[in-house]
Amino acid sequence: MSNADNGTNSGIDAGLERLKNASPFLLDIRPACEVIPTLSERDFLHAGPPLEGWHEACGALRGAVIGTILHAGTARNIADAEAIAAESIRLVPAQEHNALGTFGGIIARQTPVLVVRDQPTGTLAFAALNEGRGKAMRYGSYDTDTLARLSWMETDLAQMLGQAIRLAGGVDLFEIMSQALHMGDDCHSRQRAGSALFVSKIAPFLSACDFPAKDLSRVFQFLSQNDFFFLPLAMAAAKSALASVEGMPGSALVTCMAFNGVRCGIRVSGHGKRWWTAPVNPPQGQYFQGYSQDDAGPIIGDSEITETMGLGAFAMAGAPVLARYVGGTIEQATRFTLEMYKITAGEHPRFTIPALGFRGAPFGIDARSVVQTGIEPIFNTGIAHRVAGVGQIGAGYSRAPIECFRQAIESL
Amino acid sequence: MSNADNGTNSGIDAGLERLKNASPFLLDIRPACEVIPTLSERDFLHAGPPLEGWHEACGALRGAVIGTILHAGTARNIADAEAIAAESIRLVPAQEHNALGTFGGIIARQTPVLVVRDQPTGTLAFAALNEGRGKAMRYGSYDTDTLARLSWMETDLAQMLGQAIRLAGGVDLFEIMSQALHMGDDCHSRQRAGSALFVSKIAPFLSACDFPAKDLSRVFQFLSQNDFFFLPLAMAAAKSALASVEGMPGSALVTCMAFNGVRCGIRVSGHGKRWWTAPVNPPQGQYFQGYSQDDAGPIIGDSEITETMGLGAFAMAGAPVLARYVGGTIEQATRFTLEMYKITAGEHPRFTIPALGFRGAPFGIDARSVVQTGIEPIFNTGIAHRVAGVGQIGAGYSRAPIECFRQAIESL
Repeated sequence: MSNADNGTNSGIDAGLERLKNASPFLLDIRPACEVIPTLSERDFLHAGPPLEGWHEACGALRGAVIGTILHAGTARNIADAEAIAAESIRLVPAQEHNALGTFGGIIARQTPVLVVRDQPTGTLAFAALNEGRGKAMRYGSYDTDTLARLSWMETDLAQMLGQAIRLAGGVDLFEIMSQALHMGDDCHSRQRAGSALFVSKIAPFLSACDFPAKDLSRVFQFLSQNDFFFLPLAMAAAKSALASVEGMPGSALVTCMAFNGVRCGIRVSGHGKRWWTAPVNPPQGQYFQGYSQDDAGPIIGDSEITETMGLGAFAMAGAPVLARYVGGTIEQATRFTLEMYKITAGEHPRFTIPALGFRGAPFGIDARSVVQTGIEPIFNTGIAHRVAGVGQIGAGYSRAPIECFRQAIESL
Repeated sequence: MSNADNGTNSGIDAGLERLKNASPFLLDIRPACEVIPTLSERDFLHAGPPLEGWHEACGALRGAVIGTILHAGTARNIADAEAIAAESIRLVPAQEHNALGTFGGIIARQTPVLVVRDQPTGTLAFAALNEGRGKAMRYGSYDTDTLARLSWMETDLAQMLGQAIRLAGGVDLFEIMSQALHMGDDCHSRQRAGSALFVSKIAPFLSACDFPAKDLSRVFQFLSQNDFFFLPLAMAAAKSALASVEGMPGSALVTCMAFNGVRCGIRVSGHGKRWWTAPVNPPQGQYFQGYSQDDAGPIIGDSEITETMGLGAFAMAGAPVLARYVGGTIEQATRFTLEMYKITAGEHPRFTIPALGFRGAPFGIDARSVVQTGIEPIFNTGIAHRVAGVGQIGAGYSRAPIECFRQAIESL
């Protein structure tokens, strides 16, 4: 329910207005250290709120950290890498720097990141390139194939795609996302339309750069086989918008929801970059054949920034194929979206849901409404095996714990 | 309602079974004369059932014929071209050769055509490349820009894309179409997902061919700006399947519905390639700003082969954005699809509709059911200006006249 008739609402309204006008463009791909100059060699950016230290790292994150160290060539073997991880690195929440970790994925100094800028406010956000389904470092894999693909992604792919993006003069991400929402994507766990539209959009520029045919063909092969490629673009787009409304005095607008494998952390605008955390609920959903809830690792990832922008599970009514994929029905998906209107202050002017008569997606979570209604924000999530490197074993959804919102409101 | 309990149903059942197993692949792009060797210099293949002659040609078709003659260089000017059109050419229904005309579009001897083969039966079908929106020869335009684009399409584009398709070893069209149906396409009047998925699919092969960067980039630019590109691919896919069930003794299965600007023509399996015709109803729909029904040209085109395969307006329940585009609602779109189950004998195993709980699209029109229920098959259509060359002025839907079906049944 909107709180428009509530006298303390100015922070929410001003934030909503800015969010409605947000227009994130993908501008470049650069090594993280170029766009986050304070990032040291020791800093490993991870998803979610702060961890107490290495001992709290879940399987996927441990694997990704070890893989990142091996990939950097600073360890001779896995035991070495584990020792470095335990003693020498500093785990830092990626969102401290407006960056985003997908699942256990790490952003280190040399990691190429997508550079996204909200054009009206100039707010920047960053995310790493998506490696595709199956074995991937974000799920904790660090075998030879994973490291070889990452090497190619961080050299050839990043350079070629970066050049094409610059030649294109940027790519309007909300334009793609608003179309993708009309094509069955939730813009979080389903990225098939977004990924295909991005390929179609960038192809004229990629092909104009005069790259050798075999290199160019490999890039297109990677892109066309990766129907998750658009995920970090959607995440960074949402983040660049939401980061622009951090720190509005007294505002209970939620600016992020994120998970570190142990705790859920949220931020509300009035508190700036301060985290409010609580233990996370387990996911519900559907497991791939041969797996069950006993195999599931904990929820980790910054991708719930999409739900915070009215996408993902908030827009589930428009994603029936995804609803079925996670073991649900259209009716349930519609209920999820309708429920989220009760805790959001706005309906997005560009993100519309055909199945609801083109009603704008519920966005602008009001932490007060969460507490008042007792309705916890829903989000989609992949489910990874608890053992690092096994990869995704299912997909589903969960709820951000109300305790985070209660704490945030009480001290607002 | 299915006629499965009807003793005379064997022709329908056998046809349905074959259609369910159809698997059309795009294999090549070749000049029409190579794949239709009997095509003479005089033959101009057009949409719909036979015309009595040039005097019956509507505006779009006249423009396309004149444009084709000018394009071939056999006329010095428009008056010359008109004289040739009136005296020397032979208008032949494209479907006599398993080819398809989109709107007024002509296939002549030298026209490059998409070559589609239904793999289980080996049945071939052909269609010309789509020129994109706006001014196009299929709407009767023959200005300098239209002819220049056509020259490029029939040389560079056809050669480059043909080479990529051969390198890919063919493209599975029903695979793309079944995905596109889950992404808001009806696979007739909305082709956004199909077109983007096709670009994504063919890009690795197009880029592997070592074409000059500027030529390759132009191809991608054309493809990425043309969200109708997939239309003739979907048409030829449907035709290759439906042509495989022509001529099954006694079968009332409808194998095509098509329009020549004057009459609707249908074929039923038991009568092979014989046409049953009746005057066409005017379209209902939405006109672009500044135009009204008074400006509308008559319905022409073979693209209703998609409805005959359970797509287009038959699958409208899955295409809410299109429903709005033609001035309708989701509820109306759903009613259209549900109504079509009453005149079809099957539900397609691969073409499923998320909004209907993934029910298979209604396909296999039983001409007897049309007559018995009085429900005329619905189809989507673009609306062109009656004056050649103005182009599309709206979009909507209409119904194939019951009279065609009555005649076909009476003489079956």
